Amino acid sequence: MVTLDKIYHASHILKEVIRPTELIRSTRITDSCNLYLKTENLQVTGSFKVRGAYYKISQLSPEEREKGVIACSAGNHAQGVALAATKHGIKAKICIPDGAPISKVEATKSYGAEVCLVKGVYDDAYEKAVSLVKETGATFIHPFDDDMVIAGQGSIGLEIIDQLPKADAVVVPVGGGGLISGVAFAMKSLDPTIKIYGVQAEGAASMKNSVNDDKIETLGRVHTIADGIAVKTPGDTTFEMCKQYVDDIVTVSDDEISTAILELIEREKIIAEGAGATSVAAVMFDKLPVKGKNVVCLVSGGNIDVTILSRVINRGLQKTGRLAELVIELTDKPGQLLAVSEIISSYGANVVAIEHNRADEKLDINDCVLRLSIETRNQEHLDEIKNAITGSGFKIR
Amino acid sequence: MVTLDKIYHASHILKEVIRPTELIRSTRITDSCNLYLKTENLQVTGSFKVRGAYYKISQLSPEEREKGVIACSAGNHAQGVALAATKHGIKAKICIPDGAPISKVEATKSYGAEVCLVKGVYDDAYEKAVSLVKETGATFIHPFDDDMVIAGQGSIGLEIIDQLPKADAVVVPVGGGGLISGVAFAMKSLDPTIKIYGVQAEGAASMKNSVNDDKIETLGRVHTIADGIAVKTPGDTTFEMCKQYVDDIVTVSDDEISTAILELIEREKIIAEGAGATSVAAVMFDKLPVKGKNVVCLVSGGNIDVTILSRVINRGLQKTGRLAELVIELTDKPGQLLAVSEIISSYGANVVAIEHNRADEKLDINDCVLRLSIETRNQEHLDEIKNAITGSGFKIR
Repeated sequence: MVTLDKIYHASHILKEVIRPTELIRSTRITDSCNLYLKTENLQVTGSFKVRGAYYKISQLSPEEREKGVIACSAGNHAQGVALAATKHGIKAKICIPDGAPISKVEATKSYGAEVCLVKGVYDDAYEKAVSLVKETGATFIHPFDDDMVIAGQGSIGLEIIDQLPKADAVVVPVGGGGLISGVAFAMKSLDPTIKIYGVQAEGAASMKNSVNDDKIETLGRVHTIADGIAVKTPGDTTFEMCKQYVDDIVTVSDDEISTAILELIEREKIIAEGAGATSVAAVMFDKLPVKGKNVVCLVSGGNIDVTILSRVINRGLQKTGRLAELVIELTDKPGQLLAVSEIISSYGANVVAIEHNRADEKLDINDCVLRLSIETRNQEHLDEIKNAITGSGFKIR
Repeated sequence: MVTLDKIYHASHILKEVIRPTELIRSTRITDSCNLYLKTENLQVTGSFKVRGAYYKISQLSPEEREKGVIACSAGNHAQGVALAATKHGIKAKICIPDGAPISKVEATKSYGAEVCLVKGVYDDAYEKAVSLVKETGATFIHPFDDDMVIAGQGSIGLEIIDQLPKADAVVVPVGGGGLISGVAFAMKSLDPTIKIYGVQAEGAASMKNSVNDDKIETLGRVHTIADGIAVKTPGDTTFEMCKQYVDDIVTVSDDEISTAILELIEREKIIAEGAGATSVAAVMFDKLPVKGKNVVCLVSGGNIDVTILSRVINRGLQKTGRLAELVIELTDKPGQLLAVSEIISSYGANVVAIEHNRADEKLDINDCVLRLSIETRNQEHLDEIKNAITGSGFKIR
């Protein structure tokens, strides 16, 4: 059972490895509430996961330590377990599906774990981990459905209460539910008036569905850029704790998550991964009744692949009208490209890429297509430019 | 004259507006020293500049406050002055060259300043600011060559000594020299054994050149992605202070700066602008004698345009062999594209973009060019793929 005692104990034990991450007052993301960010993306290993893993491992018996630990994860839990085991001087083997981003595999190795790449998806890696546990007698470190792991994550709740005693609400990303279970239990035990809200990705709302239907349900498929919370089935313990301690769970879309990631970069100069940005997305897009309140968004992690980050930035820029692709049909005669270029230049937009193609089967043989990527100020600016182009007789597809 | 008294006073006054930014121990960027990051990129307004501006404005007389303040900047100083003036309830007018990024103009307005867009470059905006000062009697807030401004920036030095008493060296980005003058004076006054190193961009090394030649020199042209430190002429006061208190000034290239920005994103989950990342670049690329030392890199700011950030990420990925463009010559017969695709796939690389073009004037009429963007693990991985492609008889340009 998770107890406040265990959470206090975890806080004490964790002092030797974690950073008590800053609670940053964010004034520029929203005016609708007093927004604070609990920056677990700046935590050692780039996510909160090290807390639960480290506390769990610290409580193993000498015999258990001798046999080492095993985990299954392609992400933050892998890195958390790897670092925690290394710091305790015990062996860790992490099963990772072989399609996982190479950066995560490398990071896990760099923290000192042995990586076991398993052909297939998460479920295959999980099977492998279970069979290794049977073979070796090593301890399996569950990513969320474990009292010690939950207690470790709960230490964040104690830090928040310490940093902002007057917090009205805390918004927490939810995958398997370990983080929110620990945080909600810790905070509500000390102050039952604090609201705890969960956020899931639209494409992976397993906990929300399960709580709504009052029984644990498994999703057939999860699909979201927030890979850190793409969990098909909630845990038994976390399901019960969410029912008891969490006030509501809402969902956000991938576009909303992308916008939040971009906002955190531009306003606060920090990198959040998809899962980590869901809490901020929920507040930005008014999913929660927190108007005028002191609201803490838990930014749970920052481990996003830079290639994906680059795409997210572009998507965010497109959504806010600051990057656009225009496909314009031209008659293939001299001066057409010049005319379009002049319009764009006169409105102060910046051409990023250009493609001029005659071989388009949908066109007359004398026509051609101009594909332009332009940087604009905002949606209004983009609309002005589009109007000017069509106003000059060109057709935008 | 800058005194330790003034710097202590500035620290006291600044408590009402600034965040005493965290000093983060960074274990994963380099093994060559014990690296700490002073995260002024997470400062209010996204840079340290608010410190000097706020302290300067706080010390104006009631008559001076009545007449307001004027500044000239397209960047962090503009935002710092804007916020500082607004917090003091006085009027600020900021002259900005009209080519400045729209995001910086909007940010300056959002902090409550009146923006005066001036046709031309920085020098034109400066002229305008000077003439406005003459007209209105408002106080000009210099971005660096001012004792009060320098004292304000010096407050960072006191924080660092407090956060890491055993610091051996502090590495500071240098543009006009206000930041390093304040930090060096504060820290050397308290502990003369601490080394203070400056870093400039290769394309804007005005302070370095001036100190080397022992006279203030003006660059004809500055060119760097670190726009925050692209200063043509050092200040009179800052020049003298750099000569007296700074141990050495080194330079870093734009590629080195890009790599450092990417490293700060991937390892530490924070956004630095070009200027802010120069200190980290200097350590990463071994420009300084700090092996085994306790080294603080001052990450001075994080205000980088996201469109530029996106390009920096791509450049960093290319430099580290994780994103590559290959131009391959093919004979235009069936199966060629398939053969190349198979090689790339078999090595586990990811194709991002592809262009297949027959109309290349350098080629025989039956040949064509395949332009591929691929994501790879690292330089070694990329080299393997290139070897496999040439080994199969294709020619890579």
